[in-house]
Amino acid sequence: MEMSVPETVSSSRVLVPCMALIGPGLIGGSLALALREAGVVGEIIGFDRDEDNLRLALELGIIDRIARDDADVSQADLVFLATPVLALGEVAGRYLPLMKSGAVLTDGGSVKGRVVEQILPLIPEGIHFVPGHPISGTEKSGAAAAIAGLYRNRRCILTPLPQTDPDALALVRRLWEAAGSEVVLMEVEKHDRILAAISHLPHMVAYSLVNAVGSYDRYEENILEYSAGGFRDFTRIASSDPLMWRDIALTNRDALLEMMERCEAFFAELKEDVRKGEGEKLLEFFQRSKSMRDAIL
Amino acid sequence: MEMSVPETVSSSRVLVPCMALIGPGLIGGSLALALREAGVVGEIIGFDRDEDNLRLALELGIIDRIARDDADVSQADLVFLATPVLALGEVAGRYLPLMKSGAVLTDGGSVKGRVVEQILPLIPEGIHFVPGHPISGTEKSGAAAAIAGLYRNRRCILTPLPQTDPDALALVRRLWEAAGSEVVLMEVEKHDRILAAISHLPHMVAYSLVNAVGSYDRYEENILEYSAGGFRDFTRIASSDPLMWRDIALTNRDALLEMMERCEAFFAELKEDVRKGEGEKLLEFFQRSKSMRDAIL
Repeated sequence: MEMSVPETVSSSRVLVPCMALIGPGLIGGSLALALREAGVVGEIIGFDRDEDNLRLALELGIIDRIARDDADVSQADLVFLATPVLALGEVAGRYLPLMKSGAVLTDGGSVKGRVVEQILPLIPEGIHFVPGHPISGTEKSGAAAAIAGLYRNRRCILTPLPQTDPDALALVRRLWEAAGSEVVLMEVEKHDRILAAISHLPHMVAYSLVNAVGSYDRYEENILEYSAGGFRDFTRIASSDPLMWRDIALTNRDALLEMMERCEAFFAELKEDVRKGEGEKLLEFFQRSKSMRDAIL
Repeated sequence: MEMSVPETVSSSRVLVPCMALIGPGLIGGSLALALREAGVVGEIIGFDRDEDNLRLALELGIIDRIARDDADVSQADLVFLATPVLALGEVAGRYLPLMKSGAVLTDGGSVKGRVVEQILPLIPEGIHFVPGHPISGTEKSGAAAAIAGLYRNRRCILTPLPQTDPDALALVRRLWEAAGSEVVLMEVEKHDRILAAISHLPHMVAYSLVNAVGSYDRYEENILEYSAGGFRDFTRIASSDPLMWRDIALTNRDALLEMMERCEAFFAELKEDVRKGEGEKLLEFFQRSKSMRDAIL
């Protein structure tokens, strides 16, 4: 793991004269706003199937103009793909043949293995691909949710491949640093396993928990009405975009299943201790967990 | 379910001239501070096995004085038990014979069935018992964590028994309302099932999740270091007091097991959908959960 200290970026130092933003939602929109604020990007052209979202992105100052057609991508020095993970392969296939020679393609997909597998064979000679993933986000989505500070003091993982051009990697790195992130380089497989653990698994757990409690119909009232702050905080991530999470569950299947099985085993162990009234074991289980949790406070 | 609109309490209206606070930690200390702020309590005497915590409670203005011995409890018009759940029966048994006739005993235990089962047979003639549980708290504990606003705009559940004196119930109700809470009356069994769902289950899930992720040792680094805000928020409750949660897991076993099994079943269903790549089912599962969660925002 390599880390860098973000450097101060001068506002006059444009790194990307023209950027194509494909999918100006929470992830893409927030990067655009941050890069604009840092003064490192020139024009930003927006591309989206959703015309309402495009117009909103224009109104919010996320993009400078709406692409007239796909061919406008040829003007971009850097293309940022920020669509749901499952669409990334298809979208890349659509725009890659139109990109100009020397341009850089990067993305913000939450899963890297499948994305690299799909996009890599499509990369033409002279185009540079830098897979990336900012570890940040909220449970909201769409251009309306985009904020310039989303990536500040967060990590962004880049997963360069053996064939990745060092200059393209350096450029993408500097963009994320300009957005306020600490950039970490990592292998694709390791990225997918770590994210399965710290992000994808918790979402599966939260979605399951809310379904279990919310569908508990032993009483006439909605039991969730009793939930206090703890439950609300704990289940906030179950409000995340279902489409995005379907895509993640489908594309990071193996790493996610491994973590789901680990979690299931710990939960089953705990359940057995509860059933048997094993006070000492319960205490030890909770203490171990508290120590681990407190260490990341 | 019955609810009441908290009424404004005049600061000159003392409801309890002398209160005994047994265990001036987060729960008991916060009630003491709130009642004092509302001007509804006279003197507060503190009782605790932990002398350091008692001195801290005195310094923080939670109690007016430290009890010289157990017999000081005889001065109290109301005794509030705020020890860990598993100790409540024993502590009640120690102080009940010393209480003065007409005095009220109440508690803040997170589980009501076991507590009522243990305390009820010990209640002498002339002493009134009102079981209670404020649905509030933080992951912190001890007198240092007590705050006057802990119960403001939260619910407090009271679970009166057929033999509970109506005046004693009314008094305890007014105290919690003076602390800013909305008081809800509920049967003991229903309380324990609802709390198992919205509080006890989420804690078991959080403890299991942190253990599963924190002990994942495929890589040399501590994987938890990568966790962003979402994971931190989601697992905050895994920092809760292990002793308190051991007690809850031991004393609300049946209701908790029922909910753990429900959650396990939903998680297993989700895991199967992930394994089989069932996109439609995954989307439906996530959407259902998001709808339930968004309804309690």
